[in-house]
Amino acid sequence: MVSAPESSSTSTATLNRLSVYLRCLQELLRAGASTISSHALAERFHLSSAQIRKDLAQFGEFGIRGVGYEIAPLAERLHHLLGLDRKRRLVIVGMGQLGTALAGYIHFNDASFEVVAGFDNDPEKIGRKRRGVPVYSTDQLERVIQETGAEIAVLTVPATAAIECQEALAGAGVRAVLNFAPVLLPERGSMRVKNVDLRTYLEEASFLLSAPLP
Amino acid sequence: MVSAPESSSTSTATLNRLSVYLRCLQELLRAGASTISSHALAERFHLSSAQIRKDLAQFGEFGIRGVGYEIAPLAERLHHLLGLDRKRRLVIVGMGQLGTALAGYIHFNDASFEVVAGFDNDPEKIGRKRRGVPVYSTDQLERVIQETGAEIAVLTVPATAAIECQEALAGAGVRAVLNFAPVLLPERGSMRVKNVDLRTYLEEASFLLSAPLP
Repeated sequence: MVSAPESSSTSTATLNRLSVYLRCLQELLRAGASTISSHALAERFHLSSAQIRKDLAQFGEFGIRGVGYEIAPLAERLHHLLGLDRKRRLVIVGMGQLGTALAGYIHFNDASFEVVAGFDNDPEKIGRKRRGVPVYSTDQLERVIQETGAEIAVLTVPATAAIECQEALAGAGVRAVLNFAPVLLPERGSMRVKNVDLRTYLEEASFLLSAPLP
Repeated sequence: MVSAPESSSTSTATLNRLSVYLRCLQELLRAGASTISSHALAERFHLSSAQIRKDLAQFGEFGIRGVGYEIAPLAERLHHLLGLDRKRRLVIVGMGQLGTALAGYIHFNDASFEVVAGFDNDPEKIGRKRRGVPVYSTDQLERVIQETGAEIAVLTVPATAAIECQEALAGAGVRAVLNFAPVLLPERGSMRVKNVDLRTYLEEASFLLSAPLP
């Protein structure tokens, strides 16, 4: 079997697995563990031990033959690699139900990300706080983003407004967008876009349910 | 260049693109269009025209040489293929902020999916409606799922509760789970699992922002 050549940059799939490993390691640390084998890690979190060994081979100094990985230094290394030792500021554009829920979710679940502002067109919401996040008019987007130094935007606007919002965010200097609007947004210059399409996921489930059982 | 052999089943990536095409076609129908070329479709929705032609080649009878695709019959065919002409019932396990927001989002954005019940452990929520969805105690999960005939579950519980919930859902006959809990759930027998990990997406953005600009 011939392996595909690895590019020097980390692939998205690898990156996403490193995120999962980090979370597992943090859980083990909280439970008081100090080392774990790839086999035990795989078993406990329903992962592949061969994949774990391959992904973590680049961090070989944390693997001790016959024992496994040293959890604390490996977690620290992954944390650093993922850029999490620097707090990232983010804004949420569209403070409806989903935007507001995500604001609360990110705020309470993740110390590496800070929701610094929300934006909406609804005068009832503007000037107030929702889930602790101050809501501004979408007109103020450029100013607020520049003043807060936000780098990431979560987009939870209707499909029809998404492209226009993306342009405004690019103009304001936002470098990564997590798009929940049900429309596929393109990459724009150096701005990264991750489309998280709930309707697509539901339709995938629907298709699988329509197909005959394996 | 040698193409990878296509399997007879539709891949997840193809499936997700078909969902996107369907949404684009529906938008065009609402705007009064009746035919569109792969080029115009690609241009308008930031897609690849070569990919569109390849994905839709199996529906060749809707392509008219020099004109493009007939929108209405193609949309109908995709709708059917994705299993959307039958309404799917779903439940939401964990009626916190995110679960409640998703209940509202699915309810108002999609005629193909009906949120028939929510589950929670909080006595304040049980027996009430949130976003029009009746909330039951998690103890009632099996009974309510069997009575409503729900096939899909959206899981928005804490990481520590996710595996136990998945087992209960499998026992109740749920066939597909959309998991928002920050833990990687495994496939279980014929139950399909789609892990939608918000924290992983944020960490992916963080990594990309740490990397030097291209």
